[in-house]
Amino acid sequence: MTQPPDDRRFMALALSLGARGQGRCWPNPAVGCVIVNNGRIVGRGWTQPGGRPHAEVVALAQAGAQARGASAYVSLEPCAHIGQTPPCATALVQAGVARVVTALEDPDPRVAGGGHAMLRQAGIAVQTGVMAAEARRAHRGFLLNRTEGRPALTLKLASSFDGRIATATGESQWITGPGARRMVHAQRARHDAVMVGGGTARADDPMLTVRGMGVAAQPLRIVCSRRLDLPLGGKLAQSAGDVPLWLCHGDSAPEPARAAWEKLGARLIEVPIGAGGQLDPLALLQALGQAGLTRVFCEGGGALAASLLMAGMVDELVGFTAGLAIGAEGFPALGAMGLDALAEAPRFSLVETRAVGGDVMHCWERA
Amino acid sequence: MTQPPDDRRFMALALSLGARGQGRCWPNPAVGCVIVNNGRIVGRGWTQPGGRPHAEVVALAQAGAQARGASAYVSLEPCAHIGQTPPCATALVQAGVARVVTALEDPDPRVAGGGHAMLRQAGIAVQTGVMAAEARRAHRGFLLNRTEGRPALTLKLASSFDGRIATATGESQWITGPGARRMVHAQRARHDAVMVGGGTARADDPMLTVRGMGVAAQPLRIVCSRRLDLPLGGKLAQSAGDVPLWLCHGDSAPEPARAAWEKLGARLIEVPIGAGGQLDPLALLQALGQAGLTRVFCEGGGALAASLLMAGMVDELVGFTAGLAIGAEGFPALGAMGLDALAEAPRFSLVETRAVGGDVMHCWERA
Repeated sequence: MTQPPDDRRFMALALSLGARGQGRCWPNPAVGCVIVNNGRIVGRGWTQPGGRPHAEVVALAQAGAQARGASAYVSLEPCAHIGQTPPCATALVQAGVARVVTALEDPDPRVAGGGHAMLRQAGIAVQTGVMAAEARRAHRGFLLNRTEGRPALTLKLASSFDGRIATATGESQWITGPGARRMVHAQRARHDAVMVGGGTARADDPMLTVRGMGVAAQPLRIVCSRRLDLPLGGKLAQSAGDVPLWLCHGDSAPEPARAAWEKLGARLIEVPIGAGGQLDPLALLQALGQAGLTRVFCEGGGALAASLLMAGMVDELVGFTAGLAIGAEGFPALGAMGLDALAEAPRFSLVETRAVGGDVMHCWERA
Repeated sequence: MTQPPDDRRFMALALSLGARGQGRCWPNPAVGCVIVNNGRIVGRGWTQPGGRPHAEVVALAQAGAQARGASAYVSLEPCAHIGQTPPCATALVQAGVARVVTALEDPDPRVAGGGHAMLRQAGIAVQTGVMAAEARRAHRGFLLNRTEGRPALTLKLASSFDGRIATATGESQWITGPGARRMVHAQRARHDAVMVGGGTARADDPMLTVRGMGVAAQPLRIVCSRRLDLPLGGKLAQSAGDVPLWLCHGDSAPEPARAAWEKLGARLIEVPIGAGGQLDPLALLQALGQAGLTRVFCEGGGALAASLLMAGMVDELVGFTAGLAIGAEGFPALGAMGLDALAEAPRFSLVETRAVGGDVMHCWERA
């Protein structure tokens, strides 16, 4: 079915507004809403930091009396359940909108078509499925959380053009340029959490914060360390009281380490050990989904990245390729994957490639 | 100095015409020429397969009497010496052109400004340096041959996004898709020769020809094999009488192997051994330059690629990155490079990146 160009145009705007909330409104979806009266945009809204008010309420408040008889474009089905606020479907009815256009049904069992039904019962014309593919991508993390109990995972790999992240002696600063590093900070800001493995935390002593972007709210930091053998004197430890730090560990993590990190303010999450002797990737992500996360940005290292890839947990892949060669002795971006045949290799479809500074950025999604 | 837009426009056309001869006119440069009379293009030419007639002669023949009083745009200084044909500078004078615009002086000692001088002495207005940077790139191979005695080298690396070219068991078909493979054939056709190392020749049994492009002339094939231990029953051996095959080897290549390959029609080129125990990269390329080559396209393997990179012999780098992960046990695209520090890593500047089929193509040149 061909969709009217105006419907697609306003939905594209709603999606771009919704993206402003990404990384800041979990466990709620980052919804966008546009109110259009007689062809004129009278209200724009997106889900606010912390998850409320919802996009529709913000847009309706801006539209005021002009919402009457208007069309509302919402990037996800309006909620139908009374949570901490009255349902958005009720707000749309009370504001007197004549038509509601949505991109997707909300799979949350408390909604699941109930929002659409509530609108239709009130005599509002409802059209759904406008820019559904784009909305599924935008809401991938929320949808995965509701349907599979885990967040969407973006894996970032930045390497030399032969796939190395450091020389044999461990030298790694800098392989990609300032433009790519800045882009990584922008991508961190659009996720609920930034995650690395314990080896990376030990080798790089990273902060994992968003810097230089004028961003007030920080994504939380996650470190996966089976035995919780992380330096208590490093930057993560020093900042654990300022920016949330979650530590995912196995049952072998020693009690003193647990106690020390909890005292520093970290949240400890115990995760079962998988077949490979590391944290089980699915159990790890389900624990993060259970905690409410919708979008996680993993920046390595190679062992964690390989285990997530082999478990089929990587939804989006962002590569940065720099114009230098390190050679086969260098540290590889990905660890061992245990492939028996090329047909087993996890495959991705190209979404976009472009130059970022002097490096190549390439974005892929699960094939 | 700002150049008139029309001069740049006609020179861009001359350069694009010249590119048609790339890979087909060595040892001569792939020159393009446009004759413009009163704003109208009356002649177009490019250096023909085998290296003659030269671009200017082709364009003048097309222009005929309309060359009188016209402007000639030539992507390289017209030749001034009598070789197998009279000099192009003389042909331009005799045709009565009023103005000659060139991009570059020809560094060949037999020309080296002599062509420009001959034109000026005949009363022709001469302007040089129009689109010089683009022309230096287009004629890089010819210029390097004349100034450093070696051809330009393009290195192609096609890998998974973690820089692997095969699984641990050697499975490599296919990592990149048909679009990227077709692009590689187009790039082969624009080079004088396609070169691989002996390991690749043994592992892949390649033809190294241009296929599926409607190309009549084939670039010659070069295999670098120190000990000349190449299968005499493979495709290269079978086709050595049809498409030229040059084998670069060290002094330890056994006499029976030399004799067998010569009998099959291969040309043997003995190259000194370098510090690493392999063919010395500079000596290898100087031997190829001495033989007249201007543009060589190297497709690996990892050891040859690494030695060429470390010797600073790679002028252009073409990467194809596929959307799959193989992991650290896979074969790396580049072999060991022996870097002591990141500052020693050979660096390249990004020229272009774009999607080719489902893969990413990224083109770099020496930084």
